[in-house]
Amino acid sequence: MTTIPVRRGRPGYDQESLLRVAVRVFNERGYDGTSMEDLSRKLGITKSAIYHHVSSKEELLRLALDRALDGLFAAAADIEGSNGPSIERLERLVRASVAVLVDQLPFVTLLLRVRGNTKVERAALARRREFDHLVTDLVKQAAAEGDVRPDIDPSVTARLLFGLVNSLIEWYRPRGGLTAEHLAENLCAVAFDGLRAK
Amino acid sequence: MTTIPVRRGRPGYDQESLLRVAVRVFNERGYDGTSMEDLSRKLGITKSAIYHHVSSKEELLRLALDRALDGLFAAAADIEGSNGPSIERLERLVRASVAVLVDQLPFVTLLLRVRGNTKVERAALARRREFDHLVTDLVKQAAAEGDVRPDIDPSVTARLLFGLVNSLIEWYRPRGGLTAEHLAENLCAVAFDGLRAK
Repeated sequence: MTTIPVRRGRPGYDQESLLRVAVRVFNERGYDGTSMEDLSRKLGITKSAIYHHVSSKEELLRLALDRALDGLFAAAADIEGSNGPSIERLERLVRASVAVLVDQLPFVTLLLRVRGNTKVERAALARRREFDHLVTDLVKQAAAEGDVRPDIDPSVTARLLFGLVNSLIEWYRPRGGLTAEHLAENLCAVAFDGLRAK
Repeated sequence: MTTIPVRRGRPGYDQESLLRVAVRVFNERGYDGTSMEDLSRKLGITKSAIYHHVSSKEELLRLALDRALDGLFAAAADIEGSNGPSIERLERLVRASVAVLVDQLPFVTLLLRVRGNTKVERAALARRREFDHLVTDLVKQAAAEGDVRPDIDPSVTARLLFGLVNSLIEWYRPRGGLTAEHLAENLCAVAFDGLRAK
């Protein structure tokens, strides 16, 4: 048996478990509506015990948003490094994004509700826009290859497609019996081929 | 020329214009994060002038949420009173919902962000669930008629479809050059027949 040293403020929390609780509270009350006082009460530890792990409420937000964004950009990097028709890479990116969303649901939920009131939030919004551009470029390439319907502006198609992906945070819950793979399968079936019976 | 008597608290506001400003502030700061004090400052009138029009902050919320919900239920009632294949009625309901969303964008945005912290919010969530059931029933009927793809659970199809509709609040802005009709057309094309070129 080995013991793994973990940096703790009070029994029960390391930075990761503290972050998970904070993100849950941010999602419930909104980031702006949550004080370090609220977090301290929810965690059952003092504010100085929280500051042992993070320098500020904003650092908690930054860690949380980076978790979600790093997942999405890792998925995008995989796609960018791959070959094949753009439509297939687009479908792979959608599946990978659904996987990130399911895997990091509270973090992605927080990201998608960011309004840009602070520097950390504005930086996250800038990275989201960068990701959106990447998606739009991929849809445009797939359209140029003749694989995306030509009657819709590719930027509108891209927004509809990722609007659909992002809307999962509103209703999908991992414990509901629908696996992440099955969900991604269903979403791609509707988005790429439509809900109408052929 | 005729003069129309309008019930006013202070020059410039009747209940409707006051409500519109309040909804904008609620969407910016969150309903919980907005006090009557904040509204008073934003409106440039006293709190008692606001109370001339509405009895409470919660009444403003109720009026706003009902605006959005009444629009959606009016669309649903039109569909329920109509004949024809369920898939066509479903498509008409989607188009009508997009029209309500575009027409009442700030009100629908507020509705879709409601978390159920108050009685008014819980009542709104109950009406939203009722609307969702209506949509799911329509998808089930269309599936029973053989017009919706059989490989996806109709309740998942319904959630994906209205997740897509609701996601419009995140990016669609009426002044961006894409009309509501064109938007509904594009959305239905993708949702019913897919983004893939045929």
